[in-house]
This record gives sequence, structure tokens and C-alpha cells, in this order.
Amino acid sequence: MAASTTIIVRLEMDKSAVTFGEVASAIGAAGGDVIAIDVIRAGKTVTTRDITVNIAGSDYEGVVSALKNLPGVKVINVSDRTFLVHLGGKIEVQPKLQIKNREQLSHVYTPGVAKICKAIHEEPKRAYSLTLKRNTVAIVSDGTAVLGLGNVGPYAAIPVMEGKAMLFKQLAGVDAFPICLDTTDTDEIVETIKRIAPVFGGVNLEDIGAPRCFEIEERLQRELDIPIFHDDQHGTAVVILAALFNALKLVGKQLSSVKIVVNGVGAAGASCCKMLIAAGVRELVPVDREGIIYRGGQYDNPAWRWLAGQPQVADKPGTLSDAIKGADVFIGVSRPGVLTVEHLKSMASDPIVFAMANPDPEIEPELAEPYVRVFATGRSDYPNQVNNVLCFPGIFRGALECRARVINEEMKLAAARAIASVVRDEELNENYIIPGVFNDQVVARVRSAVIQAAIDSGVARRVPADFRNAKTSGNGR
Amino acid sequence: MAASTTIIVRLEMDKSAVTFGEVASAIGAAGGDVIAIDVIRAGKTVTTRDITVNIAGSDYEGVVSALKNLPGVKVINVSDRTFLVHLGGKIEVQPKLQIKNREQLSHVYTPGVAKICKAIHEEPKRAYSLTLKRNTVAIVSDGTAVLGLGNVGPYAAIPVMEGKAMLFKQLAGVDAFPICLDTTDTDEIVETIKRIAPVFGGVNLEDIGAPRCFEIEERLQRELDIPIFHDDQHGTAVVILAALFNALKLVGKQLSSVKIVVNGVGAAGASCCKMLIAAGVRELVPVDREGIIYRGGQYDNPAWRWLAGQPQVADKPGTLSDAIKGADVFIGVSRPGVLTVEHLKSMASDPIVFAMANPDPEIEPELAEPYVRVFATGRSDYPNQVNNVLCFPGIFRGALECRARVINEEMKLAAARAIASVVRDEELNENYIIPGVFNDQVVARVRSAVIQAAIDSGVARRVPADFRNAKTSGNGR
Repeated sequence: MAASTTIIVRLEMDKSAVTFGEVASAIGAAGGDVIAIDVIRAGKTVTTRDITVNIAGSDYEGVVSALKNLPGVKVINVSDRTFLVHLGGKIEVQPKLQIKNREQLSHVYTPGVAKICKAIHEEPKRAYSLTLKRNTVAIVSDGTAVLGLGNVGPYAAIPVMEGKAMLFKQLAGVDAFPICLDTTDTDEIVETIKRIAPVFGGVNLEDIGAPRCFEIEERLQRELDIPIFHDDQHGTAVVILAALFNALKLVGKQLSSVKIVVNGVGAAGASCCKMLIAAGVRELVPVDREGIIYRGGQYDNPAWRWLAGQPQVADKPGTLSDAIKGADVFIGVSRPGVLTVEHLKSMASDPIVFAMANPDPEIEPELAEPYVRVFATGRSDYPNQVNNVLCFPGIFRGALECRARVINEEMKLAAARAIASVVRDEELNENYIIPGVFNDQVVARVRSAVIQAAIDSGVARRVPADFRNAKTSGNGR
Repeated sequence: MAASTTIIVRLEMDKSAVTFGEVASAIGAAGGDVIAIDVIRAGKTVTTRDITVNIAGSDYEGVVSALKNLPGVKVINVSDRTFLVHLGGKIEVQPKLQIKNREQLSHVYTPGVAKICKAIHEEPKRAYSLTLKRNTVAIVSDGTAVLGLGNVGPYAAIPVMEGKAMLFKQLAGVDAFPICLDTTDTDEIVETIKRIAPVFGGVNLEDIGAPRCFEIEERLQRELDIPIFHDDQHGTAVVILAALFNALKLVGKQLSSVKIVVNGVGAAGASCCKMLIAAGVRELVPVDREGIIYRGGQYDNPAWRWLAGQPQVADKPGTLSDAIKGADVFIGVSRPGVLTVEHLKSMASDPIVFAMANPDPEIEPELAEPYVRVFATGRSDYPNQVNNVLCFPGIFRGALECRARVINEEMKLAAARAIASVVRDEELNENYIIPGVFNDQVVARVRSAVIQAAIDSGVARRVPADFRNAKTSGNGR
């Protein structure tokens, strides 16, 4: 945690009513230190200044209200550190090499570039080696389901997509560019992404509301030959599965013999159920607001309808209380407070509970603690944070390097196992079932596992050099 | 020019038929030096190697054909320097700051970023200060009119757009990202750009064929509130006008009293005519394949129809030969060889000829030289290169900084004057009417001129700091 906070306050000061000394004193009395002053505009009667203030701790409201109460002072704007890192955006587009003279210019631009254009025109797949396509992902959102904020629109979605682009590059060397769409219509989203697809090697769908996200992903994957990955669904599911693998190892249970309740079958919950079945779960109870989604039930939602047709899904209707009786694992991707201590008491021995609702989990960690063996959340201030950042950089790194057509269940499952493998057996304990987001082994392991799975499942269109040697080693050198 | 050329040749060598020594000898005998060898794949009978070879001069065909003639050798691929600089693309998306720990992560990504999303949701124009929008331009092409290559499609267009993005960043600090569209339909292009517009502060249209480019630009500019600039039209026109200002100064003539022929009224020619009229030309003769476009003529092409309604346009039909009689200036944006020595002889005294057809001009410079006073082309291997690179970085730098709604005629004219101003009176001569592309004053001058013109013409939505002080200096500090 930061020991101090820096803010920048923009003030309009009426020269006849207040002096700068009075302003500085007020800031000091409220616990702030003035560390810089910039004059923005100096008029006859009013001066506009940016004042940079340091405050012990993180609460700067005292300083701001002291200024607001000062006669002759108008507080125009307060920027804290989070605002400051966002000024002017968080990403930039950089040339990979500097053009120093005409000769270099003639290689990267006209006339030399014409030769490259011709080569790609003859054989379009050369775009993979001769352009940014090889390493570039579009992060696409329509702004309808941004974080816990809901439908805030495409402009307000940009900072999340930029943050994601930063992580893509820093953690996995993937170039990612935000595309925030000024439409929420499924057909329009699909056709827009198809039209801008040529420069991209993959598409990360982000913060698009359910159930539209299912159809958008499915149609795009059918109509484009680059991988489409809705991170809110699959990224979350992959990391939950990784955590589950390690939690089961810890309590000594097998995936094939446990009963799992998944509460909240929206984007993430649906993908999670699908992956659990692909991974070998035999007793799955999906629950949503209307109760248990049971085998043989009739549903409009395509994800629920699919579940109702799976032999692993329990065939009895009921409530969450019915579902959780005797369950070994509860996975919540729903909403705060739906889980009670009574629920936990009714679970099987050594209960595993993942309460992923954001920012407030399905049950308060402090309430749950006495009754569960392993507890995980989506939050960074408790142990066992299930965070998508563990998945998307490495899974795209792998998919791009082997030019995978799709990111299929095999690749996702491989990614989950790779993430789980980073926690060594001797390290594994109730408070460490999943590596931290800055663990530097995660991306490399996910990349390798994903490439191998893509090759094995026949969706790789290129074999990276380090996998080629492995394949040909039997032939001698 | 490069004194030597480096190429990388990928070979498959049949071990039973050829040794590496024989390969190296063949390369040496053909004038090449082997400077590196990489084994790509080693099999029982066949080895794949990348051989890096240095050659004096630029012609490497001798080396390649020597290798092709060697028994047991198969040449898989030859990459010269132009190909090598394109491998993996020429641009990347970089974070502006490195995320070092959880606390920083919480500012740029969840949970802190939610605060920024909320702020933009309340007031969408905050996207200009809190996201990449402030400094980011989309370079949009449908690949229908790429360089002199024609309709090569969106994949083959990417390298040109990447080269442009490099120049935007290196010369003017503008972040530009290529969007190559998999559609050539006017309506689809317009609606696609509108849908992806939220993250961009401007749109540079590029290499889109005429006449669709006119409608696309016009509709986008009407329906979006960010500047839309078709560089093939206006970038070319701005730089031609800059060159013309200096050429007229050199020969001592006034723009308002010269007769100008513009040959080729496509994208660039139409914009050039419009700017010439805006700049004060009184006698203009546009010519296309069908002859003179004359006042009162009936035309389908909207740009021609507009010209036919202008009082500055001559009212007599005729051929290029008729048009050029007595003309002071010939501006060709048409095709090779249309201009003859006879045409030049019929011009007024001190003829100014800009022969911009690419790569071969309207008349060979050597042929024209004895008959013209000032000669310019689009080529880098003759003096007076009229190059768009002089315009687009600075004009967008200025437009973005003042958040101009559009790039209007006033701003383009200001950019042309700014480019011309870089050549000082004492430097001005027949072989130096326009600055070189690496002249470091160009962008700064264009930026300032464009911002001032945007403010004066009422399309600026923000006054940059260095223009604010100028405005308020009268009020005291």
C-alpha cells in the first residue's frame, strides 16, 4: 500500500479575496504538503493554478474540502494518482526501428514497400510474416458489461481495454489494440469485427453482455480463421479450473468423483461448466436466479439449453440450498451475499468455495472461514485471487505463435493445467492454490502448453521452432 | 545508396548430393560473402539452412541463380533487406509505463480503473484527456488504390499503413494504427469507421480509390466530430501548393495572375484544384482523359461537377495541348508520358512543371529540363520531391492538439504556407523549392500554423497551452 498519496488540484483563485499564502496554509492545516505549483492561466482578477499536494495515507478529502471552504477559491478539478497515470492514455504505437535516412525510408515506405505489398498480394498468408498481424490482437468491447459498472458505453470502456493492452505487452510481448464499438447490435458487432480483421492475428472480446456475447463469439469464430476468445467467459473459466485442480489435490479428491455447484450461469459460469465437463467432472449442478438448471429442463438461453442436454448435469430442479447439500465444491460467479453459513454447513467434508462476485463476494471471507477448507475470491486483498491476468497473455502468446485457427477446449484445459503447475507440491497450501499475477513462470508455461495442445488437436498452422526440434529429434541431426 | 546488400537465403540441402563447402564456394564465386548460417531443421537426408550473404552493390540475382543451379540444393526463399525490415511487422503497441507491483496494477487496471470509467461515463469528452483518443489516429484503407499497384486488397495494404504509422510517431509523436478493411463498399466503409471511431482522435483515409473516396470522406466528416483527412487527396494538394508558393516566388509571379493547368482530376487533382481556388488562383484549367473540364460542362463525377461551377475555371472545352498554351504552371497528377516537349514550348515564360505521376512522371526530367524553369516530381532521386510525408504528421499533430472537429481549407492552406516557409529566401533556388522529408522544422511549423488556423476558423475545441498565453497576454499575469 502507498504510504502517501499525491493529488493535483486545479483552483481558480480570486486575487481580491484570497492570497496564495492562505491557500498553502489551508492545505497544510488539513495535513497536506504543497510540492509543486503551475500557473495555468493568469488573468486580471482570477488566476488558475495546478497545485500538487502530498498527503500521508490515501484520504485526501480533508484537503479538498478545506480548499472548497476557502472564500475566493473555486476547486475546478482534483486528480489523484489513478487519474494521473491515465492522462493522455496508457499505451502508444511505436515504430520498431527508427528511420534515419532516405535509404531506410525507401525500405519501410515508398518505393521499397511496394515489393512487400506485391508479395502479400500474391500470397495473402504472407501477411503473417511481413506485417504486424503475426503478433497483434484486437481487444474488442461494446462497453455494455464493463467491470461491475454495467453498460457504460464505448468511451468509458477504453481505459479497461488500454489496461489490458498494457498487460498483454508487458507480460507476453503481444501487441494489443483497443477497439471500442459504437454499437451494441449483435449483427453490427459481428460484421464490424469481420471487416477490420485483416490486420489482427486474434480477437479478445471483452466486457460484452450475455447472452449476446455467446452468439457474437460463435459467429465470429465460424466466419473468421483467427482465434476469437471472450475473456470474461473463458479466461475466468480457465483460471477457476486451474485453482480447482490445485484445491482438489490439496484435499485429496478427484475431479471425476466430486459434486460441483456452479452458481450464476452467465458468460463466465457457462464457460466454466463447459470446461468442467470437458475436464471430466461427472456431477455438476448449475444454478441461476431461477434455481437449478437441470437435465431435461426447457430453456431459451442457449448456454442453459446446452447444459440441460449434458449427462453430467443433475436432473432434479431445486434451489441453491438443495443444490449445495453434500457438494464438494461451490463456484460462485454471481452476486454478493447469496451464500450463507447454513449453505456451507450442508456441504461435504473439506469444502472448496470460490466466491468470485466482484467486488463483493458471494459470502464475506471472514464469515466463511470457519466452515471451509479452501476459499478463493476475485479480490487482490485476500489469498487465492482468481485473476484473468493469469490466462489471457499466455494463451494468446501461444495461439499467435502457432497461428492457431481457434482457441479450443483442449487449449484452454492445457492453459488451466499449466497455470496450476506453477504452484509446486511442496508450496501448495490452503492459502496458495494459484500463482500470483506477477509470477514470471506463468506465461511461458501457458504458452508451451497451449501450443502443444493446438498442434495435438490439429488447429496449429505453424510449428514454432522450439517445437520443431522436438518433433524431428527422432530423425537425427 | 547502400554500398552493399545483405540477403538471407533459405536452402534445403540434400546431404547425399551436396556439401556445405560446395554451397559456400558457389556463393563466393558469384561475388557473395557468407556471414552467418542458421540450421532451421536437420533431417536424416535433408538439412534446411538460413544463409546470410553479403553482396557488393544491390544486385543479388547472380548469387541466387548460382545456388539454384547447384545439384542437391533447393532455394526455398530469398529475403533482402526490405523483406528483413518487414519481418514481424514494423510497429508495436507499447505501455507508456511499466507495471511493477500490485499497487500500480490497481491504478492502471482493476479495481482503480473503474473510477476512470465512471468519470468518462459521466462526461464522454473526458476520453480526450484520460485515454489514448487524445493522440491516436486510425489509418484506414480498403486496399483498392495502393501506391501505383491498384486494387491489391486489405492484406497487401498493411505494410504501407504500417510505414505511415512509423512516420506519424517518429516525426510528430502521433500514435497511428492501421485499419485495413475487408470491404470496398462505400456504405460499409462509412458505417465501419463510424462504429470504431470512439478510440480515435482522427481518421487518415489512405489509398481508397476515386470517386468513392470523395463520398466516404464527406459522409464521415458530416457524421463524426473528429477530423477525417484523405491523405492522397489533401496531403498531396497541400505539398503541391507549398512547392507552388515557392516556385512562384522564385520566378516573381503572383498566384492571382497566373494560368494553371491541373492534369488528372482524380483524388489528388480534385483537392489540388479546390485548394488553388481557395488560395486565390483566378485562371484554372483542369484536364482529364476526356479533355478540359470546362465551366458550364455537364459531368457525373461530383468533383468535376463542382469545378464546372467555379468562376475561376476556364469556359472553353479542348485538349491538353489547348489548355497548356500560355500556361504559367503545369501540375500533373496523372500518368507517365502525357506531357511532350511541344507542350512545354507552348507555355508562358519561366514555366513551372510539377510532374507527379508515380513512379514515372508525366515527362522525363531529362527531356523537360531545357524547357522549364522549375521542375518537381514525386520521386526521391530528383530535386524538389513533393512528398506527403511533409504534411500528414504535422497537420494531424496540430489538429489533435487543438481537438479540431475537422481539417478545413484554412488549416490546409496554413499547412502549405508553413511548409513553404521552411525554405528561407536566401536558400530558395530552382533545385530547392521544398524542404526535405527529414527537415526537423517542418512538423513544428505545420503544427503551429494549423492550430492557429483552427482557432481562427472556429473549429478548435481546445486551445493548447502555448496559444493560451499568447491570447491572454493582453490581460496581464
